[in-house]
Amino acid sequence: MPTLVIMRHGESQANRDNIFTGWSDVPLTKKGIFQAHQAGKIIFKSGLQFDDVHTSFLKRAIITTNIVLDDSHQSFIPEHKSWRLNERHYGGLRGKNKLTVKKKVGVKQLKIWRRSFSVVPPLLKKRDEDSRYDRYGVKIPLGESLQMAQARLIPYWVDQIAPKLLDGKNQLIVAHGSTLRALIKYLENISDEAIPDIEVPNGKPIRYDFDRQLNIVQKQFMTGDE
Amino acid sequence: MPTLVIMRHGESQANRDNIFTGWSDVPLTKKGIFQAHQAGKIIFKSGLQFDDVHTSFLKRAIITTNIVLDDSHQSFIPEHKSWRLNERHYGGLRGKNKLTVKKKVGVKQLKIWRRSFSVVPPLLKKRDEDSRYDRYGVKIPLGESLQMAQARLIPYWVDQIAPKLLDGKNQLIVAHGSTLRALIKYLENISDEAIPDIEVPNGKPIRYDFDRQLNIVQKQFMTGDE
Repeated sequence: MPTLVIMRHGESQANRDNIFTGWSDVPLTKKGIFQAHQAGKIIFKSGLQFDDVHTSFLKRAIITTNIVLDDSHQSFIPEHKSWRLNERHYGGLRGKNKLTVKKKVGVKQLKIWRRSFSVVPPLLKKRDEDSRYDRYGVKIPLGESLQMAQARLIPYWVDQIAPKLLDGKNQLIVAHGSTLRALIKYLENISDEAIPDIEVPNGKPIRYDFDRQLNIVQKQFMTGDE
Repeated sequence: MPTLVIMRHGESQANRDNIFTGWSDVPLTKKGIFQAHQAGKIIFKSGLQFDDVHTSFLKRAIITTNIVLDDSHQSFIPEHKSWRLNERHYGGLRGKNKLTVKKKVGVKQLKIWRRSFSVVPPLLKKRDEDSRYDRYGVKIPLGESLQMAQARLIPYWVDQIAPKLLDGKNQLIVAHGSTLRALIKYLENISDEAIPDIEVPNGKPIRYDFDRQLNIVQKQFMTGDE
């Protein structure tokens, strides 16, 4: 039975400072690095061997991946990086403190922007320039709803991850709070109404065991004692 | 004009302890980690952007790669790992202290085993078992001459690196002392007689600029001021 582990990166400086981030490339905090080591140790203890790891173009996910692979003694596995696993692009909210936004627009609007499925954040007026995306012909979004992030994420799941699981190969995804919420929604068929209550904590590996048709048999936070 | 940078990993525990290593998966020392950071800073200062990085299945090269990419702000580039870039397999010398071997066999024989092109080290009687190679159908060598290491390295150069350079894409290789000697021998057409004098220091990026037919236009140790 193939196994998938999904994991959000360790705490970033923006997580610590309660700031909307999205595609901004912020580093991990010391706590975030510690969380990544903890996750690596849990995966090592579990004995789980991955055939591939998938991560985003953002360093908070890539550095978390590198630490997890090193601590679980499987640095040698293929590491695939894709912009499709990047965090949801927060548009005009990017760089803003969540408390400041709450004071300005109220708790209800903040929750809608943070957690709803289809509501689009205020869009940027000007597209960011970043050569790492230009060279792959990727148009950086002006802002994304969770639904828009899911729409560019799922082709990666369908093309690059699901076939490997169907082939019996264990897969690890190290990505971001919102893109993992979007993936969980897809995998577990969670309704638009229920998705605001789903959160993904930093640095905690979540294990899915599938049957051969990719139906979920079991889901659990890993402790290493599975 | 495409650019290639080749670099040996930072100092490993076996380098520090003067021990033959080969395919044994030893970690970097603190000095080795420092060297990797220095190399990353030099590459960042040079402004060089890579399209791909290639490394081995061994953590001393992979960790060096990760540090160099992070410090030069290009963690997002595709990272390709291949057993073909692994260090030469030292066979029966593996794990032995070089001074001890010198005392036993003499300085001349030690130099032949370490630096000659075609002399094979004492072979292991029993093949190592390591699932990371089994799963890719790789038969772990019982020991390799530099020539044997070159013979499994060059197909990777021909298939995976040279075509990207010909396509104008800058490439970075982070590998090992002997495999880089073998590659330098091939690239610079160095004779079997001259190769014993070629050494590759830990953690120093070496830059090759090519013309469009992959003839070497310039070779230099990078300082960041190019």
